[in-house]
Amino acid sequence: MSNSWTTLVADKLQRQRQSIPPGWEISVPPNDVLDVTSVAKDCGSLSRQELKITGIEDVEELLHKLASGELSSVSVTMAFYKRAIIAHQLTNCLTEIFVERALHRAAELDEYLQTTGQTVGALHGLPISLKDQISMEGLETIMGYVSGIGKYSEHDAVLVQILYDCGAVPFVRTNVPQTIMWAETLNNIFGRTTNPYNRSLTSGGSSGGEAALIALKGSILGVGSDIGGSVRSPAAFCGIYGLRPSYGRVPYEGTPNSFEGQDSVLSVLGPMSRSLSGIKVFMKAIADSKPWQKDPLAVRKPWNEEEYNLLEHGHGKELCFGIIWADGVVVPHPPILRALKQTKSALVAAGHKVIDWVPINHLEMNTLIRAIWGSGAFEDITVATSASGEPLLTSTSLLPDSDGQTPHPFKGAQTSAYKLWQLHKRKRELRKEYLDLWEKTIEVTETGRPIDAIIAPVAPYAAPPHGMNKISNYTRIWSLLDYPALALPVTKVNPAIDLKAPPHQFLCDLDKEHYDLYDPNVFVNAPVAVQLVGRTLEEEALIGIGEVVDAALRAIPTPV
Amino acid sequence: MSNSWTTLVADKLQRQRQSIPPGWEISVPPNDVLDVTSVAKDCGSLSRQELKITGIEDVEELLHKLASGELSSVSVTMAFYKRAIIAHQLTNCLTEIFVERALHRAAELDEYLQTTGQTVGALHGLPISLKDQISMEGLETIMGYVSGIGKYSEHDAVLVQILYDCGAVPFVRTNVPQTIMWAETLNNIFGRTTNPYNRSLTSGGSSGGEAALIALKGSILGVGSDIGGSVRSPAAFCGIYGLRPSYGRVPYEGTPNSFEGQDSVLSVLGPMSRSLSGIKVFMKAIADSKPWQKDPLAVRKPWNEEEYNLLEHGHGKELCFGIIWADGVVVPHPPILRALKQTKSALVAAGHKVIDWVPINHLEMNTLIRAIWGSGAFEDITVATSASGEPLLTSTSLLPDSDGQTPHPFKGAQTSAYKLWQLHKRKRELRKEYLDLWEKTIEVTETGRPIDAIIAPVAPYAAPPHGMNKISNYTRIWSLLDYPALALPVTKVNPAIDLKAPPHQFLCDLDKEHYDLYDPNVFVNAPVAVQLVGRTLEEEALIGIGEVVDAALRAIPTPV
Repeated sequence: MSNSWTTLVADKLQRQRQSIPPGWEISVPPNDVLDVTSVAKDCGSLSRQELKITGIEDVEELLHKLASGELSSVSVTMAFYKRAIIAHQLTNCLTEIFVERALHRAAELDEYLQTTGQTVGALHGLPISLKDQISMEGLETIMGYVSGIGKYSEHDAVLVQILYDCGAVPFVRTNVPQTIMWAETLNNIFGRTTNPYNRSLTSGGSSGGEAALIALKGSILGVGSDIGGSVRSPAAFCGIYGLRPSYGRVPYEGTPNSFEGQDSVLSVLGPMSRSLSGIKVFMKAIADSKPWQKDPLAVRKPWNEEEYNLLEHGHGKELCFGIIWADGVVVPHPPILRALKQTKSALVAAGHKVIDWVPINHLEMNTLIRAIWGSGAFEDITVATSASGEPLLTSTSLLPDSDGQTPHPFKGAQTSAYKLWQLHKRKRELRKEYLDLWEKTIEVTETGRPIDAIIAPVAPYAAPPHGMNKISNYTRIWSLLDYPALALPVTKVNPAIDLKAPPHQFLCDLDKEHYDLYDPNVFVNAPVAVQLVGRTLEEEALIGIGEVVDAALRAIPTPV
Repeated sequence: MSNSWTTLVADKLQRQRQSIPPGWEISVPPNDVLDVTSVAKDCGSLSRQELKITGIEDVEELLHKLASGELSSVSVTMAFYKRAIIAHQLTNCLTEIFVERALHRAAELDEYLQTTGQTVGALHGLPISLKDQISMEGLETIMGYVSGIGKYSEHDAVLVQILYDCGAVPFVRTNVPQTIMWAETLNNIFGRTTNPYNRSLTSGGSSGGEAALIALKGSILGVGSDIGGSVRSPAAFCGIYGLRPSYGRVPYEGTPNSFEGQDSVLSVLGPMSRSLSGIKVFMKAIADSKPWQKDPLAVRKPWNEEEYNLLEHGHGKELCFGIIWADGVVVPHPPILRALKQTKSALVAAGHKVIDWVPINHLEMNTLIRAIWGSGAFEDITVATSASGEPLLTSTSLLPDSDGQTPHPFKGAQTSAYKLWQLHKRKRELRKEYLDLWEKTIEVTETGRPIDAIIAPVAPYAAPPHGMNKISNYTRIWSLLDYPALALPVTKVNPAIDLKAPPHQFLCDLDKEHYDLYDPNVFVNAPVAVQLVGRTLEEEALIGIGEVVDAALRAIPTPV
């Protein structure tokens, strides 16, 4: 059995290598070169034009160039393709590379535009990367499991159908962890994806392949999935934008998942990009495509331009934010607190108000999510691993094999359906309490509205060293509450200013452990983000408010 | 123990009797008088003005008279109060009678209108009845369980808060079955609610108290709950309108339920009325009240007038309907088929198109729903009955005690959370198949759209004799699919024309049993409805299309 799964892996890796054109190998810097973000620019593999194309940050700008014919889809796809292969050699971020199919589609789109003068849709000609979970016809959906090798999908996921209809060009898929339920990215097939800003640190997970790829400009827009932070944490760790939309806003139909049928704290698909423009363009294109005609769980809500223009939020003037400095469980590391302060100052300087938000029940919500997932998790993942005989990873330190000693975190957590119902009951009560808390802020904002959004850490640290990303609660709670949440880059860890703080009164053992983990020199150069949290099904407004925050941050001088 | 629960019941019933003013007893006709719909008019207890007020069918008309001051809320509430007490004596439909509170609120509203010239909200002054499940501060929420006696709610349910804010006047609550999970209305406290058109027949359930009350004009607008037909079946059996909205359209927060935490095939609250106007007024008032600010599960969707005006359905001209004659499990009785034919003819005469809809997977969906509910049901209901020691009813034939022999239908159906996840997986597949089937009709409608709605039986029979309402699948499947569905009255069983059909080739044993049940003289005078089914979260359009169907039915001469 063990022999057979390793044979499958070897075969898959060989096929992956074959999908990279000969001569595209770069000279990969030695491991002690931590920051690899400038390698693509310096390595000489990309032409000036290719560097220029892949250097574009604003997705709308690129779409405009594609729609006007200034750039062809073939040339844009080829440029990102090349840069994606470089990114992969640096961080091990790709799983599937299907550029022939992509270039073929790009050529069709170019011809259509040339012949008709029309674009096919809102994403005409745009290369797009997808997490290795979102099915595409004729490709294996491996999803971090050896048992996925050889499982060729018969259909495109509904999201892929819609992306094609909009004129997008899927061109690569990206790495995920085994089970998709780790907050780092490693598995027994493709191994580990590292952080481009500091390869000794994690890229986060489970959409860590996407984040590393996009950070290295190997893609301008990608799609990840997020059940408890899997878009937001890697986005934050790799210095890009990532949105967790509400349940049902982006169609999941046809995309397989771990824990299928776990209908309680749901995974959602969400966009990742180097600009907010990418987030907006994606969400608008999908909502305008009426996904509810193809996905029974997609919410009937077309893109609402009035909401995006913040009609219900004072047109974006004099907003009031709640800010979470700590969740009552662990106190964030100094760079995170600095990013929060920086965001607060920037917003106040721009005429907005920021009041403290005292979080309630965050620890209980975290425990509850674990219990809900745990009710069926272990059976689910062991069915998937035992199908191939691959070892089950029991931590993110371990690769390629589990040590066989550590119990898996979900082992023994199984429960009855009736007990699961009781957890759901409590979940509903907690959601009601949080909603009431939010509504009650109308008494203190002086805007006539409750707070417009919450600003919070994405995680209590910047990207930690491999195997150390163990605290997901700053993202998970918004998944349980089903609030849309956006990771928004702010700064990077700077050992000269982000000094280790003197010990505080620790809230719990985990808080102490977390405090001890911080060493500015370990975290050097890691990106730091904040999380902007809105209200259920208010994606348009959240993006609009995100632009306000982004503009405020860009308007202040970068510190030190 | 047994002594103690019966004592509680005796006390509760005595308190109920005391809430009826002395002198309001009518001379109740003997049991062999089956149709009691004209008793209120003939018994002499109501003044001409009270008969006139309670005789109004159109809720908007009554609201207009209240808003203009033509009628006071006190006089309207008093009229319905009196007629509700008559209805109760005839069919045993009420549980809680709290008229002092209602009259007090009505007087406040009258004064507000007189003083300010303004109404409080969209439902100003309107008495409204509620199923004995929807909590009100200071009242016992009994919900068909002896253990509910003495449980006084500390808060109004969110729906009640919103109704008060809109100016409505809750004045009575209505009977439900033990567990709220039977399709008839009986329990160990209040006993059985009968059908006003034929008291030997069931009023349906679980919102059977509401349906009987409204049919007897003891209320003009009421609220029931529906997890598998509990609004639609009693509405159909009692000849009124009843809407099952999509999940999250009407706030459930603060309303207790059986199977709490069962987050898969959900119960929803929905309006019941003698006119479609009542359904519309209710849904618009609730959606316009932004229930998502008070209920975390309420969908952020304000009332959409464009959708109500059928902008996406050709402005209501030349619609195309799919019609279900039988679900592939049991063939409906002759009066049901006649109502379907009548509806089809009326629609065709009005310029619409009606094509046959061949239902898929209806039997599997029914089995699946039972398995999903069964996964935790038995523990849930035995916790509730054992709290008081009352016997668990094991069929709707039995009252007041179970025979102790028949096993409860949910006994032994418990399962693990992981197995429940597998059921959910299958549910999603079935929902996708049905969605695709609906979308595919665009190829045959010739309207450029898929079918606009489905017309189907509400049940395969008109109200059956007590204890015989055992087939809920014609309503349940739309609960699993989360399609909004409206029960719409069409005709009544007429033994002269609804003759027993010759035996057909039976689809299964249940079909044969169902065939054998029909005897025109047993079902005499029972109302017959059709079910109009729309698309998830399209309540506005469904009501708009309902008006089209209603108008078409009223435009043709009543047969025989």
